[in-house]
Amino acid sequence: MELEFLRRIRPHVLTPNPEVLLGIGDDAAILAASGSETVLTVDLLTEGVDFLLEKADPVLIGRKALAVNLSDLAAMAAVPTAILVAVALPKTDRVTGVGTLSPLELGERLFEGIRTLAGQYEVAIIGGDTNTWDGGLVLSITAIGRTTEHGATRRGGAKPGDRIFVTGPLGGSILGHQFTFEPRVREALYLNAYYDIHAAMDISDGLSLDLSRLAAESGCTAVLWEAAIPISDDARRMNDASTPLEHALYDGEDFELLLTVSPQTAEALLRERPFPLYEIGEITAAGSTPIRILSKDGTLHDDVPRGFLH
Amino acid sequence: MELEFLRRIRPHVLTPNPEVLLGIGDDAAILAASGSETVLTVDLLTEGVDFLLEKADPVLIGRKALAVNLSDLAAMAAVPTAILVAVALPKTDRVTGVGTLSPLELGERLFEGIRTLAGQYEVAIIGGDTNTWDGGLVLSITAIGRTTEHGATRRGGAKPGDRIFVTGPLGGSILGHQFTFEPRVREALYLNAYYDIHAAMDISDGLSLDLSRLAAESGCTAVLWEAAIPISDDARRMNDASTPLEHALYDGEDFELLLTVSPQTAEALLRERPFPLYEIGEITAAGSTPIRILSKDGTLHDDVPRGFLH
Repeated sequence: MELEFLRRIRPHVLTPNPEVLLGIGDDAAILAASGSETVLTVDLLTEGVDFLLEKADPVLIGRKALAVNLSDLAAMAAVPTAILVAVALPKTDRVTGVGTLSPLELGERLFEGIRTLAGQYEVAIIGGDTNTWDGGLVLSITAIGRTTEHGATRRGGAKPGDRIFVTGPLGGSILGHQFTFEPRVREALYLNAYYDIHAAMDISDGLSLDLSRLAAESGCTAVLWEAAIPISDDARRMNDASTPLEHALYDGEDFELLLTVSPQTAEALLRERPFPLYEIGEITAAGSTPIRILSKDGTLHDDVPRGFLH
Repeated sequence: MELEFLRRIRPHVLTPNPEVLLGIGDDAAILAASGSETVLTVDLLTEGVDFLLEKADPVLIGRKALAVNLSDLAAMAAVPTAILVAVALPKTDRVTGVGTLSPLELGERLFEGIRTLAGQYEVAIIGGDTNTWDGGLVLSITAIGRTTEHGATRRGGAKPGDRIFVTGPLGGSILGHQFTFEPRVREALYLNAYYDIHAAMDISDGLSLDLSRLAAESGCTAVLWEAAIPISDDARRMNDASTPLEHALYDGEDFELLLTVSPQTAEALLRERPFPLYEIGEITAAGSTPIRILSKDGTLHDDVPRGFLH
């Protein structure tokens, strides 16, 4: 089946890309030498945790598997170059959100989602490993990027006095955003090229948890301004026991960029605002907790970091 | 659980390696720029296909997952640099070949097997993704290597007249070799440094099938000399309906190097023989099939390529 699958997809993966010296078909792929650093990340999605196969379109599952990786590369301000795709397909026909599919049909739809997004970001599919087995669907993508002349952004560079920014409203991604989000690759490259970014990461496990990681890695505490946190329409639509603010703080899979800059850079960012950007707090010297929240009534309280653990 | 797992393994992955600028802990890893080409491969192992969890020691499963990747890098004559490890762990306790293990214990034993082999080849573990789910064990490793000044070896370079070599006896790997084999990294680098290798690959799906791929990729036919094929003790010990020769031809997971060189280089190789090397046939112009077998009785017959398809 792997051979048939490769035969079908091979015409689509010959993306002309001068960095790819050798793509699918040998024991390994080869990328050209370059003066850039190489940035690497892997994400593995499992049925029942990251998606429900019986309710989802496999095109969106494939898209998501790549998008989460591109979001990780964006967090480092790396230009995406290429990907390797490893998949374990159920060996029997399966009910999906778009009807019953054979293993080959399921593989093709996953690949269609990967290929379409890869094309939009000029990412070459240079290798993979296709398997069938008795278990559920598992999809793992390794993404390779390269740094620009401006270097990589990291989590650990926040400094007391820094302002905290986020690139979009948060919460309620389970209503659809988790499959359709646009990885913030262009935004990250633009910000890193024109502004001095102290620290950056993407929000995959929720603002509270991910910001606590950024703060801890930087040896600081982050103060979130409750009134400034952008709450998504989906977070307001959730209509469950949690408030919209709680959804914005603790839901996962927003895949927005979280970054910190000096107060001077923050002023420039707010003045120039090249795309939606929300100033949501500031970095202080390390306190008793990695995160504190400045409430609308002006009181400051510790937050216990929590979020969506995959 | 991922956090606890990372906490436990983090001390072990800080391999001092000047090529690794940033390892586990951020959104992605960073490798230093270099003048070498980057070689990349991924392999995904699934329970029930690549191993039986209830009979295997997870240390050996982890070792195997890395070893198959190192074997792919060896096939390209690349120096292994770093790996990313993605795993889907069963969320409940599981019976294994070394007793019942919790998800954390299973993860730790897998990691021990990976780490030990990685250390032997000075490979840094620079990233990963640890998941638990309702399904079986899935382990996917992406390996990164770099070419030397001698460049990469590929499958497609065999020429009529070339002699075919293999680095070890074949067949019966199911009796243990599939878990304990040594990837031929050093042999590949040595051969590529001192001899002119026309084509190379590793034997993962059986001599017949993999040699047919090498021949097809080179636009040639390969003639195997039956009397010269090295048959492993395990192939002789199989004691089933297949002959030892059939095991050597069609079993999978030998992970020996398969290579072709000119007749002159073949002479030098046989004279100098830096390590076990077996001359097993020759390359001819393309015939009706990618592989033919020269029997002990002197007759030549076509072989239908077959082997172990994972």
